[in-house]
Amino acid sequence: MAIVLKQSDSDFNESFSAFLSTKREVSEDVDRVVETIIKNVRTNGDAALIDYSKQFDRIDLAQHGIAISADEVNAAMESAPQATVEALKLARDRIHSHHARQMPKDDRYTDALGVELGSRWTAIDSVGLYVPGGTASYPSSVLMNAVPAQVAGVERIVMVVPSPDGKLNPLVLVAARLAGVSEIYRVGGAQAVAALAYGTETIAPVAKIVGPGNAYVAAAKRRVFGTVGIDMIAGPSEVLILADADNNPDWIAADLLAQAEHDSAAQSILITDDETFGEAVMAAVEHQLKTLPRGQTASESWRDYGAVILVNDLPSALPLVNRIAPEHLEIAAADTEELLAGVRNAGAIFLGRYTPEVIGDYVGGSNHVLPTARSARFSSGLSVLDYVKRTSILRLGVEQLRALGPAAIELARAEGLDAHGNSVAIRLNL
Amino acid sequence: MAIVLKQSDSDFNESFSAFLSTKREVSEDVDRVVETIIKNVRTNGDAALIDYSKQFDRIDLAQHGIAISADEVNAAMESAPQATVEALKLARDRIHSHHARQMPKDDRYTDALGVELGSRWTAIDSVGLYVPGGTASYPSSVLMNAVPAQVAGVERIVMVVPSPDGKLNPLVLVAARLAGVSEIYRVGGAQAVAALAYGTETIAPVAKIVGPGNAYVAAAKRRVFGTVGIDMIAGPSEVLILADADNNPDWIAADLLAQAEHDSAAQSILITDDETFGEAVMAAVEHQLKTLPRGQTASESWRDYGAVILVNDLPSALPLVNRIAPEHLEIAAADTEELLAGVRNAGAIFLGRYTPEVIGDYVGGSNHVLPTARSARFSSGLSVLDYVKRTSILRLGVEQLRALGPAAIELARAEGLDAHGNSVAIRLNL
Repeated sequence: MAIVLKQSDSDFNESFSAFLSTKREVSEDVDRVVETIIKNVRTNGDAALIDYSKQFDRIDLAQHGIAISADEVNAAMESAPQATVEALKLARDRIHSHHARQMPKDDRYTDALGVELGSRWTAIDSVGLYVPGGTASYPSSVLMNAVPAQVAGVERIVMVVPSPDGKLNPLVLVAARLAGVSEIYRVGGAQAVAALAYGTETIAPVAKIVGPGNAYVAAAKRRVFGTVGIDMIAGPSEVLILADADNNPDWIAADLLAQAEHDSAAQSILITDDETFGEAVMAAVEHQLKTLPRGQTASESWRDYGAVILVNDLPSALPLVNRIAPEHLEIAAADTEELLAGVRNAGAIFLGRYTPEVIGDYVGGSNHVLPTARSARFSSGLSVLDYVKRTSILRLGVEQLRALGPAAIELARAEGLDAHGNSVAIRLNL
Repeated sequence: MAIVLKQSDSDFNESFSAFLSTKREVSEDVDRVVETIIKNVRTNGDAALIDYSKQFDRIDLAQHGIAISADEVNAAMESAPQATVEALKLARDRIHSHHARQMPKDDRYTDALGVELGSRWTAIDSVGLYVPGGTASYPSSVLMNAVPAQVAGVERIVMVVPSPDGKLNPLVLVAARLAGVSEIYRVGGAQAVAALAYGTETIAPVAKIVGPGNAYVAAAKRRVFGTVGIDMIAGPSEVLILADADNNPDWIAADLLAQAEHDSAAQSILITDDETFGEAVMAAVEHQLKTLPRGQTASESWRDYGAVILVNDLPSALPLVNRIAPEHLEIAAADTEELLAGVRNAGAIFLGRYTPEVIGDYVGGSNHVLPTARSARFSSGLSVLDYVKRTSILRLGVEQLRALGPAAIELARAEGLDAHGNSVAIRLNL
């Protein structure tokens, strides 16, 4: 049973702050192990990948090959249900169209002094995409990570995915093919991250690594950061639903459970201004839990981290929403635009009664890789911007240097950097 | 004396790769100390800041105050040389104008199916700016970090700067005033980073921390990442100059030394297609070193990390430039635009014979916080984008849900996420 907080209670501020600081992740201390794995891969390359895959995934890559061949991907394409392939294509096309709008534009201009300035965007040359094995091996996540890279113009999109006991989700290979992934390797864990960062005989290194993973993968990404770029470190998923009483409680309950079924550390929060409605949603959650295949997981998530927050009116929920900074925010209310205007911190917002968050997971077109654990206060969901970088461009002629040079020399002098001053002065005979 | 590499030599590829992998930074293992400092600040707040400032900065903040008052800033403004204040204002205004063009635009649109999609940008609420003490306490860096935050619309711009032995560079306070910094605190080191991330009685926490610092500051930033956002971890500065023989060797030598004087771990590289010119530049470097106040530092940098690379022709330097991915690239050649087109990886590019990199350090208008240590392969210089975040927006009506729902249900089923499927199906009576 989820916690219930009421804004009208005198201790609400304390309760809400305590709720906000609840930790949902036990940070496993795997850093020492990961350090050893990375060193081993740097030293021994493919041999280390083969050793670790035997040890952790119970598969002999010396026999099966580190690389997944085009034939294997072809076989996956042929074996996949046609309806699923079509759904993946629809998702891919919608993600592509939406992300194409995110491509930043170059900007070169000349200012009033005649100084030429500019910003030029180029794609990152090569990117590694980590895909988890087992039950969290989601083809939709392959699309969400790879399609924006393709839109950005990344030349080498390299995927790694572990194959525990030789098993691999064929739909992950299908999604990789549909999204233009150029190379796929059958490795996972910290060893896969190390291979992507430093390279082995088989895997050429990449410039940036993205994609979700377990504690070992996350620790490895933190360690190789600097040598390569990394994306955000994703935590358990969350949804916050801001709903008035004019919603079907069953629909809202279904949305809360869609989040809760991900992980027992996932979090589903309902904020409403109607106590009776809140109670009806809670009852509907209990009812739906009974028949849910992943009911155990969803039930634990709802019991440990679920919350129903009763507010005096929906606008007064906005400061709470902004403090929570949810990964997903549904606004299922009459005046969605007015409420939307008051939201500053959220990864993605789903407006109206017919936009369940799940549409954004798959076929909305927007990205489902979003900032978790309150990080929407300072970061954004995955986009084309994560696969490009900007170079600034400056050009002065002698006149412009005459105009700006003296101020540069003055500041260099003030900072005690004489050689800085010289490099301007020498051109102006100063 | 810098290393000399010649593209025509048979072992050039090996030599170049070895040169590329030279480490310029000894990674100090300060992580354990930093962990303790952060814990102490989280537990004891201001008291811990006062203790550490006594210990590390030999100043009693219980007496002097943790906060720097408006009066102190006023006094700094009055004592500063007018020419320096004017130069800072010119720099501030040029940085402001250039960065205003970087503000990303919101995008809301309806696609062919009638689905409403959007991206909305909002400023981060509060940002902490770390400013080092001592000789690296640069007013220009305060402008470069704070002005883009101001352009983005960040409400609270909080600066921390240590005051070892009670000393503080008054120009840093002047720059803070000019750039719209809203609060300043007299603390530094890992303890200042901890205070910004978790807050104390005096310092309210921020959502993101930016700015350069020593090994302790860098380790603290890595540790608090996740609780708050951080910017890149900056390494020693670098310049790569691509120059033909039609340059004045003294000018190019001055530019190499402007970089070298920063730090004995800084790196200056010349790539040229003319051996005689390369020798002339090397001679000019030695000559200029003799009279340089920071000659010791510059000399160590040039001796240990400097390089002159002789290429067959300038276009054949481009693959080398892209592998080096320099923080700063000067193209001092006849056909700058043609060479520019071939550069993929560089933080900032300075074109022509009258654009010494130093102009970009101060008054060019572009940012001088740029990716170091080859990270221009995957990251960009500081910009307005570092102070905003994007929220995606999605709205479907019942017709759009009917159109897209079945594909979402199909993918949810394929991923074994039944509650996901339910949240769509329940709205469509499926």
